[in-house]
Amino acid sequence: MTSGRGVWITLEGGDGSGKTTQSNLLAEWLVAAGRTVVRTREPGGSEVGQLIRDIVLHHRGDIAPRAEALLYAADRAHHVATVVRPALERGDVVLQDRYLDSSVAYQGAGRVLDAKEIRDLSLWAAEGALPDLTVLLDLDPAAARTRLDSADKPFDRLEAEQEEFHGRVRDAYLALADAEPDRFLVLDAAASPESIVERIRARVGELLG
Amino acid sequence: MTSGRGVWITLEGGDGSGKTTQSNLLAEWLVAAGRTVVRTREPGGSEVGQLIRDIVLHHRGDIAPRAEALLYAADRAHHVATVVRPALERGDVVLQDRYLDSSVAYQGAGRVLDAKEIRDLSLWAAEGALPDLTVLLDLDPAAARTRLDSADKPFDRLEAEQEEFHGRVRDAYLALADAEPDRFLVLDAAASPESIVERIRARVGELLG
Repeated sequence: MTSGRGVWITLEGGDGSGKTTQSNLLAEWLVAAGRTVVRTREPGGSEVGQLIRDIVLHHRGDIAPRAEALLYAADRAHHVATVVRPALERGDVVLQDRYLDSSVAYQGAGRVLDAKEIRDLSLWAAEGALPDLTVLLDLDPAAARTRLDSADKPFDRLEAEQEEFHGRVRDAYLALADAEPDRFLVLDAAASPESIVERIRARVGELLG
Repeated sequence: MTSGRGVWITLEGGDGSGKTTQSNLLAEWLVAAGRTVVRTREPGGSEVGQLIRDIVLHHRGDIAPRAEALLYAADRAHHVATVVRPALERGDVVLQDRYLDSSVAYQGAGRVLDAKEIRDLSLWAAEGALPDLTVLLDLDPAAARTRLDSADKPFDRLEAEQEEFHGRVRDAYLALADAEPDRFLVLDAAASPESIVERIRARVGELLG
């Protein structure tokens, strides 16, 4: 995606890893530096995408796994073609909450679909478009567990299953980062928001040249 | 798809080729023979599929081509998993208006997307499921044109473009039938409905054994 003049940054990580906080801090800094920032997300980052997102969220669990993967991919195809590419061609900075790494990590961790097939599907949808930078806010589920335990909250079977699932999501994210070290910046989400955004700013500064 | 005990028949062909008439005649005959018939269609043959179909139809032209192809594939994945497979497992006869051959013929004829990629996408969506029989009601666009001309209706540029498009769709259908002669039964849609259904019944009779 280096053909456009803009810069494309995606944020990845589990819910509660601080993606929104980092996106806010980074956007403020970019705007202060005179850049036009387009903040967007997947799924649901376009009008058609909102309709698709409604189907997926309202029928969760009732949709065949491959149909759900294809709906996410359809959202992605439309979003990249109608929002991301035009913004990059205008020279804007695109700050995006979740992209194909989310699909690979979550749908792959669900163990129903093959992670490689999900990635290929996403790449076909997006005509191969990959971000200039992907920030992974990495949160150790064991640390989150420790915090829960210290609150003396009982830890039931469903929570144990969810923890196992989130552990698989985290492993998948880290494997993706290992495979593409140039694209990924992996940061400890347990650090202070200011220290995290400082590291992100340093990297984005290099991209902006 | 021969693992189930049922029989899966799809009908293909352009609008006005008589698919609905043939489906009616065939269903009557099957029910009279004591078979349970499930009549369905793509897109929109399931509740989730109706929502997907609404998006595609209401936003036609505004949806990125790959997003549209992925929405059709999502409809297909859900329809095959939740309607077609269960019916075949129950031993029913599934009579379906349009399936993946429509996607390949129409989207391929649009010349924006690659026909092979569309077919691969559909097969991934449907986990490789193919009908026992596909009836192609083949209508020569030149014959349709002759009928238009004889009505002294002016033939404008848009209609000429549409005729060219429908010619490409027909060529794509015939190429698909050539590639899979065992699955396809190609019939001249200009013949009488009774003579057409007689040929279909003969073939379906063999499948029912």
